[in-house]
Amino acid sequence: MLVNNIPYKTYLAESEIPNAWYNLRADMKVKPAPLLNPGTGKPLTADELTPIFCEELVKQELDNDTPYFPIPKEILDFYKMYRPSPLVRAYCLEKVLDTPARIYYKFEGNNTSGSHKLNSAIAQAYYAKQQGLKGVTTETGAGQWGTALSMACAYLGLDCKVFMVKVSYEQKPFRREVMRTYGASVTPSPSMETEVGKKILAEHPGTTGSLGCAISEAVEVAVKNPGYRYVLGSVLNQVLLHQSIIGLEAKAAFDKIGVRPDIIIGCAGGGSNLGGLIAPFMGEKLRGEADYRIIAVEPASCPSFTRGKFAYDFCDTGMICPLAKMYTLGSSFIPSPNHAGGLRFHGMSTVLSQLYHDGLMEARAVEQTSVFEAAELFARSEGILPAPESSHAIRAAIDEALKCRETGEQKDILFGLTGTGYFDLKAYEQFNDGTMTDYIPTDEDLAKGFAGLPKIDA
Amino acid sequence: MLVNNIPYKTYLAESEIPNAWYNLRADMKVKPAPLLNPGTGKPLTADELTPIFCEELVKQELDNDTPYFPIPKEILDFYKMYRPSPLVRAYCLEKVLDTPARIYYKFEGNNTSGSHKLNSAIAQAYYAKQQGLKGVTTETGAGQWGTALSMACAYLGLDCKVFMVKVSYEQKPFRREVMRTYGASVTPSPSMETEVGKKILAEHPGTTGSLGCAISEAVEVAVKNPGYRYVLGSVLNQVLLHQSIIGLEAKAAFDKIGVRPDIIIGCAGGGSNLGGLIAPFMGEKLRGEADYRIIAVEPASCPSFTRGKFAYDFCDTGMICPLAKMYTLGSSFIPSPNHAGGLRFHGMSTVLSQLYHDGLMEARAVEQTSVFEAAELFARSEGILPAPESSHAIRAAIDEALKCRETGEQKDILFGLTGTGYFDLKAYEQFNDGTMTDYIPTDEDLAKGFAGLPKIDA
Repeated sequence: MLVNNIPYKTYLAESEIPNAWYNLRADMKVKPAPLLNPGTGKPLTADELTPIFCEELVKQELDNDTPYFPIPKEILDFYKMYRPSPLVRAYCLEKVLDTPARIYYKFEGNNTSGSHKLNSAIAQAYYAKQQGLKGVTTETGAGQWGTALSMACAYLGLDCKVFMVKVSYEQKPFRREVMRTYGASVTPSPSMETEVGKKILAEHPGTTGSLGCAISEAVEVAVKNPGYRYVLGSVLNQVLLHQSIIGLEAKAAFDKIGVRPDIIIGCAGGGSNLGGLIAPFMGEKLRGEADYRIIAVEPASCPSFTRGKFAYDFCDTGMICPLAKMYTLGSSFIPSPNHAGGLRFHGMSTVLSQLYHDGLMEARAVEQTSVFEAAELFARSEGILPAPESSHAIRAAIDEALKCRETGEQKDILFGLTGTGYFDLKAYEQFNDGTMTDYIPTDEDLAKGFAGLPKIDA
Repeated sequence: MLVNNIPYKTYLAESEIPNAWYNLRADMKVKPAPLLNPGTGKPLTADELTPIFCEELVKQELDNDTPYFPIPKEILDFYKMYRPSPLVRAYCLEKVLDTPARIYYKFEGNNTSGSHKLNSAIAQAYYAKQQGLKGVTTETGAGQWGTALSMACAYLGLDCKVFMVKVSYEQKPFRREVMRTYGASVTPSPSMETEVGKKILAEHPGTTGSLGCAISEAVEVAVKNPGYRYVLGSVLNQVLLHQSIIGLEAKAAFDKIGVRPDIIIGCAGGGSNLGGLIAPFMGEKLRGEADYRIIAVEPASCPSFTRGKFAYDFCDTGMICPLAKMYTLGSSFIPSPNHAGGLRFHGMSTVLSQLYHDGLMEARAVEQTSVFEAAELFARSEGILPAPESSHAIRAAIDEALKCRETGEQKDILFGLTGTGYFDLKAYEQFNDGTMTDYIPTDEDLAKGFAGLPKIDA
């Protein structure tokens, strides 16, 4: 039926798992703008960051020059539990689309956290353990990051305290149970365990919480408790560094089958997956060694790249975190609750923001029902139920493959399949029932978010 | 840290996926007893079975002599979407147990159905398609089989009608949504769509259904609608044949790393996983080429092997299906509802029953809380959240590895990790909350089930 020498799944041998992360910043001519101290407006120093983050991670965060960071043996051993992840040729999807394009996806969902988040969770937990810390704190919304961190901490015997946005805590009890099974303590946020939580509960007694509030609580607990640090699953430079394992493995697998992709597509929330997937390819592009079309796909309901401003802004809604220069909708922008996926962050990685600003990649926004149409088609042909986030990339990959059907071009299209949708079936139910709706913010909606941008421009 | 040449995961190449299923019956000196027509008490003929099952599957069901059945190319192509499955060396679990034993598991959960059930679902759907049928009907309890069949039917463009036990339909809405996403129609059973459903609803207006009733509805719809047949996910000889892919791949992977397992462990409900996993190893044992300790693990709440009778019995609670000679608790035996796993079938594959009766394998029953203790330990060390069913095998594997710690023996232990627990988090919640209870039927409970055994002994 299918005549081709490329296997359905290309796995690297375990010995071929890359042993160093690639730091894309080293090859950027225009470096991402530094994080600023919101009080002084000056670039943050390592000394200012170490009370919050682990020392080694602060080094990784601030280093724009070192191209490769060796992956410690203990992290590599953990990677071998669930990596290398397969590079899959989507033969069945191609057949259904009747396209001459060749579609590939790097599948990161075959681990219990259900996503790529584990790649950075184990790294951050490892450095916390190395520093002799007792534990780490974090926030989680949809729960992928919290689950990944719980797994990493269980493996290393580290305490893990997760503040979970209250509405998710109540609506996603199963995500909560996975974290508890991995020994994490999970607290609905806002809570009475922190000063900021108490304050918010006093002001808004019935609130169901927000990611910004959960971040504030997690940071407070980390700073106030000796032996604890705060960790974050996206946006930061260190996270993109760890996630480069995705792109490095993908590139090595492509080399194995003798293919060079023409188009690389990833979904974009805070940028952890996209930044990791494209890293080595974008590196070649920056060094003038190869060219690739790189496409970021974001939800039309939270269009940071396509309709945001490139400006300094807070990373959190609570405005306690550093200022980052990025494509942002304003830290007070809250996407419509009808959106099912986890790509709801108002801003974007500073690395990706700079690359986009410099014309090195494209971006497009897609609407939710079209995303689930793509998800269903993919599930039925490729046998994997994709996460709503990942399905944004599937939508764009299908659209590109359909263009190839029009033009007859045999392009090689790679997209990142970041995770599975086992905990997103409420959204699938809406789609199956025909009750899912789209939402596109008006210019007035966006203007409100922009009005809250801090008056700094470095 | 870990010095060993055996990789964490051993994958066969796609070209090494076995291209024929192995029929264990061909090597059995004492063949499994034939299915009997409950009306006549005589062995069922192909002609009697073809109105219910596909023709090719009837042939496979009745053939006790042909050792290998070639796997059609279309099924092999589908297998390549999610196979070969990895043979995993459980380095991290070994370390936590501090055992000299080497533990391996064949992981069948890395597909959206979450279990090994897909191996037979695609085969049964394929033969239905080949026969020019419009669709298939089936029943599902916990939902793994229904999900697998939905995926297979979506791939082949076949209609799929699933009768889902009403209590599961209501308690597991997400399983239902996965099936709907794959285009299956899912009906809570008992329903008003069948005569048998109407009858049961009239007699028991508030009933939440049972697997036996769902089977009866699915068979009725298959028999009454031209172009439809009934398919079943366990117990039958044909299912064990298809599932032999698990054991064949495992054996090929062991050959690759130069290891021969001493002990092979599988959970046992109807026998689909256990029969598939052990097939080629048991074949060697039957032919006198090698010896293996083979252990079936069943729940103490539903102890068919360890406390059942070896007798002819109905496969369904509704007593409309053929009679099979097997270890059984009686078709009227219903395990305590406190049991979380899917291993609730009153009987057992006739093949496995005969092998157990002939002393070729062992069996043990384990209690639910000890199963979840093993599941949690496994999840935390190996990074996979196991299904409750699979965790029965994990329990026994851990117990054997701990015995090796006592004796200092370096045994090679293989167990089947049949699936993941993403849809079983209600049970994990009970375990995490400390509210999970055990249940062991009394001799009086069992006597009631035995009293309902049919008065036939062929």
